[in-house]
Amino acid sequence: MKTLRVNMDRLEAKWESVLPEYERLGGRALIAKILLTEVPPQCEPLGPNNKLIFAPGLLGGTSLSSSGRLSIGGKSPLTGGVKEANCGGNGSSDLARLGVKALVVEGQPADEKLYQLCISGTGVELLPADEWRGLGTYATAAKAQERWGADCTVISIGQAGEFLMSAAGVVCTGHGEQNSRVAARGGLGALMGSKGLKAVVLNSSGADALPLADPELFRVSARRFAKELVESPKTGRKGAMHTYGTSAIVAAVNEMGAFPTRNFSEGSFETAENLYGQRLREITLERGGKVGTTCMAGCVIACCNVFVDENGKPVVSTLQYETIGLLGSNLGIGTLDEIAHLNRLCNDFGLDSIEAGASLGVAAEAGLARFGDKDSFVSLLEEITEGSVLGRVLGQGAAVTGRVLGVSRVPVAKGQAMPAYDPRALKGNGVTYAASPMGADHTAGNAFGARREVNPLGTEGQRELSLKLQLGAAMLDSTGLCLFARPPVYGDSQLMVDLINGRFGWGWSVADLEEFKKTVLKMELGFNEKAGLTLADARMPEYMTREPLPPHDTVFDVPEAELDAVFSAL
Amino acid sequence: MKTLRVNMDRLEAKWESVLPEYERLGGRALIAKILLTEVPPQCEPLGPNNKLIFAPGLLGGTSLSSSGRLSIGGKSPLTGGVKEANCGGNGSSDLARLGVKALVVEGQPADEKLYQLCISGTGVELLPADEWRGLGTYATAAKAQERWGADCTVISIGQAGEFLMSAAGVVCTGHGEQNSRVAARGGLGALMGSKGLKAVVLNSSGADALPLADPELFRVSARRFAKELVESPKTGRKGAMHTYGTSAIVAAVNEMGAFPTRNFSEGSFETAENLYGQRLREITLERGGKVGTTCMAGCVIACCNVFVDENGKPVVSTLQYETIGLLGSNLGIGTLDEIAHLNRLCNDFGLDSIEAGASLGVAAEAGLARFGDKDSFVSLLEEITEGSVLGRVLGQGAAVTGRVLGVSRVPVAKGQAMPAYDPRALKGNGVTYAASPMGADHTAGNAFGARREVNPLGTEGQRELSLKLQLGAAMLDSTGLCLFARPPVYGDSQLMVDLINGRFGWGWSVADLEEFKKTVLKMELGFNEKAGLTLADARMPEYMTREPLPPHDTVFDVPEAELDAVFSAL
Repeated sequence: MKTLRVNMDRLEAKWESVLPEYERLGGRALIAKILLTEVPPQCEPLGPNNKLIFAPGLLGGTSLSSSGRLSIGGKSPLTGGVKEANCGGNGSSDLARLGVKALVVEGQPADEKLYQLCISGTGVELLPADEWRGLGTYATAAKAQERWGADCTVISIGQAGEFLMSAAGVVCTGHGEQNSRVAARGGLGALMGSKGLKAVVLNSSGADALPLADPELFRVSARRFAKELVESPKTGRKGAMHTYGTSAIVAAVNEMGAFPTRNFSEGSFETAENLYGQRLREITLERGGKVGTTCMAGCVIACCNVFVDENGKPVVSTLQYETIGLLGSNLGIGTLDEIAHLNRLCNDFGLDSIEAGASLGVAAEAGLARFGDKDSFVSLLEEITEGSVLGRVLGQGAAVTGRVLGVSRVPVAKGQAMPAYDPRALKGNGVTYAASPMGADHTAGNAFGARREVNPLGTEGQRELSLKLQLGAAMLDSTGLCLFARPPVYGDSQLMVDLINGRFGWGWSVADLEEFKKTVLKMELGFNEKAGLTLADARMPEYMTREPLPPHDTVFDVPEAELDAVFSAL
Repeated sequence: MKTLRVNMDRLEAKWESVLPEYERLGGRALIAKILLTEVPPQCEPLGPNNKLIFAPGLLGGTSLSSSGRLSIGGKSPLTGGVKEANCGGNGSSDLARLGVKALVVEGQPADEKLYQLCISGTGVELLPADEWRGLGTYATAAKAQERWGADCTVISIGQAGEFLMSAAGVVCTGHGEQNSRVAARGGLGALMGSKGLKAVVLNSSGADALPLADPELFRVSARRFAKELVESPKTGRKGAMHTYGTSAIVAAVNEMGAFPTRNFSEGSFETAENLYGQRLREITLERGGKVGTTCMAGCVIACCNVFVDENGKPVVSTLQYETIGLLGSNLGIGTLDEIAHLNRLCNDFGLDSIEAGASLGVAAEAGLARFGDKDSFVSLLEEITEGSVLGRVLGQGAAVTGRVLGVSRVPVAKGQAMPAYDPRALKGNGVTYAASPMGADHTAGNAFGARREVNPLGTEGQRELSLKLQLGAAMLDSTGLCLFARPPVYGDSQLMVDLINGRFGWGWSVADLEEFKKTVLKMELGFNEKAGLTLADARMPEYMTREPLPPHDTVFDVPEAELDAVFSAL
């Protein structure tokens, strides 16, 4: 595999051999290493010295189920630190099969125009795309597929990215219809916008299968991996994930009192039942939508859905838990139809639904919208796509929105909005939000799954749990595995090692894998330290340490010394 | 002297003995010590855990000329670090003569109402002031003087402080008519607003003179100090400071190519002549305004003016250099009348004219106003006082304005806007902007005066110069001396020591004074470190290291290693 470097100053693309120090890295790990090696940590995130990196995980492009998460990264304009966000879809598989270990976009076009990059088996083309300026991601994908072929994968930004908004994500077309996969967090859409890149188009048709160092070991391991997924009570055909998708957990989080409600002022939502996974499944099937679909080819979990309106017309795919929390209960909105509408707008404008939902919640608290009134939030989202001053404020995320509007109840860590678990009622997530190099991010180490082992309301054991989860997430994010595919490998590191050795023949041991996970976090923490982040950034918002969250009336009280010690065992 | 603590939770004031460790500190030094001792460095600046501190300098309240700078401080909502801003007027003298070594305002009123605090010889009263909500500082001062007496000193916030804007300063009535003295920098007006404090009213009539430990030593030293000021070619009656005020330097800075023009995109302004000190004096005298007035009683320098309109009606007092740069050339505005109008609005709304001017410059770059068109800037300032969303953005200062509007040319350091010396053509100031614990602040160590000793365009010797200047400023800001009163004491530390010993009888040596200066900076750097600021914050904006500044076409190229080493000799 090669590194594909695209220089936006000179508008040229070139293939390079992979540097030896990048060779055994992929996805999130590779992004951290490239940032540490090539990007000045103190650079302005939207200036010419930052780089936008797309990297398949180590196992991307293989036939392994659920291994196609595409990592996108750079220095975050939202947190000021390292950022990797990943998404499903076929982008990772396409890139890997096209021989791209990392696509590194550098510089900025002098003409401030927009460009499209097409990578296919026949070559790389970097062409003007200024005629797509102002288009949402649905229209951009349609135009790109019209130009390059209906089977292409299109990775694009919407208006939010063009406006350099920190709530802008990068949106990737997925497997199946209407499928928007979003590498949402940290403002990577703004970074892509700052590079003048409207879309990356991938066409891997006709590409050869990737070579395997030990085909037999890989095939045996991959088969076992898939079998365990299928047989797991969580991820199997009868499991909640396949049956209800991520929305399966609405009920449990609401019952825990950690379901963000009306700008994180309460932890359970009076009409949450209407948002339960069961309800989502019911409505969808009644109306002729789909459940149990996949976001990427060959995934045996199939947790996705195509949410349709009353006439059976697709609204959004896939409607997910975090979005239901942030654009639903957090805004006091109690129907899936309303949430799906807001979600579609976010996907189209290229907005992280978490960050945007948090901005809207803060705006409602400031009186600019009304909790429970969807239309008032639609108006605010339209301000974002219009680029009005209010829209530009909201589009910068919850922290800027709170500061500008004079609101002190702002649910962020390291400047990034919290996902749909209030840390006062799920304290392990609070530790992850505070400590993770990524800022408030559930995918960095979500304690929800461990709620029966570690008391979510207690302070004991939270930092140890968070570190364990963060190490696990670092492994998944670097190999390209979906977080939901963790059951087979969390209990059996040897299987993970076998998959890697089967693919590459590196002769890794379990100890090597453990070291690898630690290295990922160390690289990220190292970048952040050089960028100027300190333990003072590893904190919850002050109000959460003071303002009790109903119904448990707990505050976030994990001692600061515990937050400071999260990585001491690394 | 005592510490007066005002608790806004309980709405009560109480006198306390001065803690032994606060005894030998005053002004800026005392603020740093109180912050380090009493304020959690990571607290939210506008939350209940921050404190707002008013402290006269060590020599405040005495008869010494030019010793009445009032230090105001707290953790800055703009920079996130330590903040001391000081102003002239009689506030320091009043407080000191009322026996107040430090006024410390704590907590926040639960009712979110506004309050007024009156301190006089007969007692301390904390009363509602909600009827003053929405008033500018001129009207607030008038109401307060109506209520408490025309001779009272009124320290207040305008609309900007009420809206918790980071560009809000604290405005103090001065000696003489229409005199607005502003402790402008760092958002202390927002901090005062967050405490629910609309005004502090001081009435020192009938207060006794302060005791002197060695009256003879003090009087002899004070007389020599005043004599040297009067005889100095800089500060004497024939000197530029008395004749033209601070605007005397417009010509020189413009000729150096460091005069910020059109959002710091050029270093000399084609019609700068109309802004020269000579012109200000001419116009003012022609129209019956005043030059050579004082801001505080007993100052022998008398550098102020009362700028009047064509009908002889006072517009603003005093019109100063930094304002002429930031609200003038920086906005492409070429007449003193237009600048004075903008300045009056800033003073009335309670805005730092530097931060506001920088916000407006960035807004013009984004197309929201037109360089050279005063009315377009008046409209933007009115948005601020109205608290519209655009106004709230601008009121947060240049950094937030730039981020929201997607502008990369944003002249800030540590989040605070630069005063009127472009650091690419006066590199010593760039070092001070980057390194100073205060953020971009000319009063922290202004290299302009040393332009003949250290080449302003060179990189050599800048860090040594900056440190020397920063130590001098720390001494002045802690004793209450005006920066312009430096000639007698910069060359003669013994005189400074004699003044302190004459006042307090501490038996200080010159070595003690040198140690004292260092201690001030060390305390401030210590607070900032705990607050999470690092060397990554000691930087110029990236564009200034890349974009040459006409007419010299120089970039800011003092090596980062030099910036990092500024305080290594402390």
